[in-house]
Amino acid sequence: MSDLNWQDLSAQVVALLQQSRQRVLTQMQRALTIDEKTSRKDLVTNVDKGNEQFLIQGIRQLDPQAQVLGEEGFGDHVTSTTGRLWIVDPIDGTMNFVKQRDNFAMMIGIYQDGVGQLGFIYDVMKDVLYRGGPQLGGVWANEMQLTAPADLALSDGLIGMSSPLVIHDVAHMQAIVHASAGMRIYGSAGIEMINVMVGKTLGYISHLKPWDFAAGQILLNTLGVQMSTIDGQPLDMLSSNLVLVATKQAQRDILQIEEDDVSL
Amino acid sequence: MSDLNWQDLSAQVVALLQQSRQRVLTQMQRALTIDEKTSRKDLVTNVDKGNEQFLIQGIRQLDPQAQVLGEEGFGDHVTSTTGRLWIVDPIDGTMNFVKQRDNFAMMIGIYQDGVGQLGFIYDVMKDVLYRGGPQLGGVWANEMQLTAPADLALSDGLIGMSSPLVIHDVAHMQAIVHASAGMRIYGSAGIEMINVMVGKTLGYISHLKPWDFAAGQILLNTLGVQMSTIDGQPLDMLSSNLVLVATKQAQRDILQIEEDDVSL
Repeated sequence: MSDLNWQDLSAQVVALLQQSRQRVLTQMQRALTIDEKTSRKDLVTNVDKGNEQFLIQGIRQLDPQAQVLGEEGFGDHVTSTTGRLWIVDPIDGTMNFVKQRDNFAMMIGIYQDGVGQLGFIYDVMKDVLYRGGPQLGGVWANEMQLTAPADLALSDGLIGMSSPLVIHDVAHMQAIVHASAGMRIYGSAGIEMINVMVGKTLGYISHLKPWDFAAGQILLNTLGVQMSTIDGQPLDMLSSNLVLVATKQAQRDILQIEEDDVSL
Repeated sequence: MSDLNWQDLSAQVVALLQQSRQRVLTQMQRALTIDEKTSRKDLVTNVDKGNEQFLIQGIRQLDPQAQVLGEEGFGDHVTSTTGRLWIVDPIDGTMNFVKQRDNFAMMIGIYQDGVGQLGFIYDVMKDVLYRGGPQLGGVWANEMQLTAPADLALSDGLIGMSSPLVIHDVAHMQAIVHASAGMRIYGSAGIEMINVMVGKTLGYISHLKPWDFAAGQILLNTLGVQMSTIDGQPLDMLSSNLVLVATKQAQRDILQIEEDDVSL
């Protein structure tokens, strides 16, 4: 599919996500079926599962030969990033979805031979869909093109975090928070990535799976924001990573804290 | 002023806060003057100061004999809660105001002989003004009356926190987070209280000054949510408190953790 028209494909994915949002809003009016995955803090609902099936079905029609990796397991068993790979999170921030009925996202990232091409993060309740990547030459929030966020030093901005990392002080998280202007916890990787894109935070650190970071990596890199492991290495697209999202300056500041082995 | 018409007064405060919001939105288009108060994480801007002066001037016209306590010191030197007392926070969540230009609030609480009468929390950027109290017989978000949030147990909901309390594990905060469904940090007492009112979180714990909790205490109590010190005692309206906001069930769960002296 070397003749792929990425502009058209982007418009088709936008349409698919808009349909998916309508389905989810309808399903939210009924009682949810909630199951625990690895623990009582790791939930999945009937809506996550149904929405992944809906999205993957749509993706198969758009791009029949691609591999699809989905959080809830309805895609392929993916062992290589060769070719085109779609990575799907049908409901990111399921705990927020269940407890808040707000502050959750749908995410799709499209990679070609391991290189990000198009990313989509949909803030469902605010109805703002972020789309972009190298194939579009920028990032848009609905119809508004985003400008790159300011390249702030760690001390000059707020940083998004995940709660267990801070409480257990994994990889000097508390020293990083201390050096920043403050910590925020929003409970959804997608919402955290949006906050970095629009400059409300300068970064985000969390243990993430591919479906949590695939879309955000494409969008953020397009805006000049760095995404790496906490040690500054490239992410493994097929496994769990301790992910560091940060402006260039803040990434340097944080990697220095890691290198100096600073504790609070 | 025993002939005070609280309905009229509420409408006048709403009008004052709407004017104040327009002023702040205008001022946000110009560069801010930012000063540090006690530390580099405790900021005040020209907008906080100017808005407190504007609000207090309006309050003096509405209620000339009342005492006014304001965060930035433009009110009275208040040493007693006798009579009518207005407590004002012109910009709550100043760090969010400075770094995010979002997620901050204006707050006013009106007390009579130490008893809450009317409370107002204004989410400025979302343009949603929460008002209510015993004198109105309920709480409204703009024109929509709120129903009381569900009386959730601690394990069944998310809890708002302040970053230093969690990092330093003050008063068993980490055990409380562990027992909850998860922690969120939004960086503004006003926004946190709104989240509890609308049921997005079941509680909030933070070191707070009177202007941080005066309005929220009135609104939340009207909705059946408890506000006390972390030990379950009434708040001192004229000083700093470690404040526990929680549903009835979650308050019992948290007080039990305090009593049992549980560590994570």
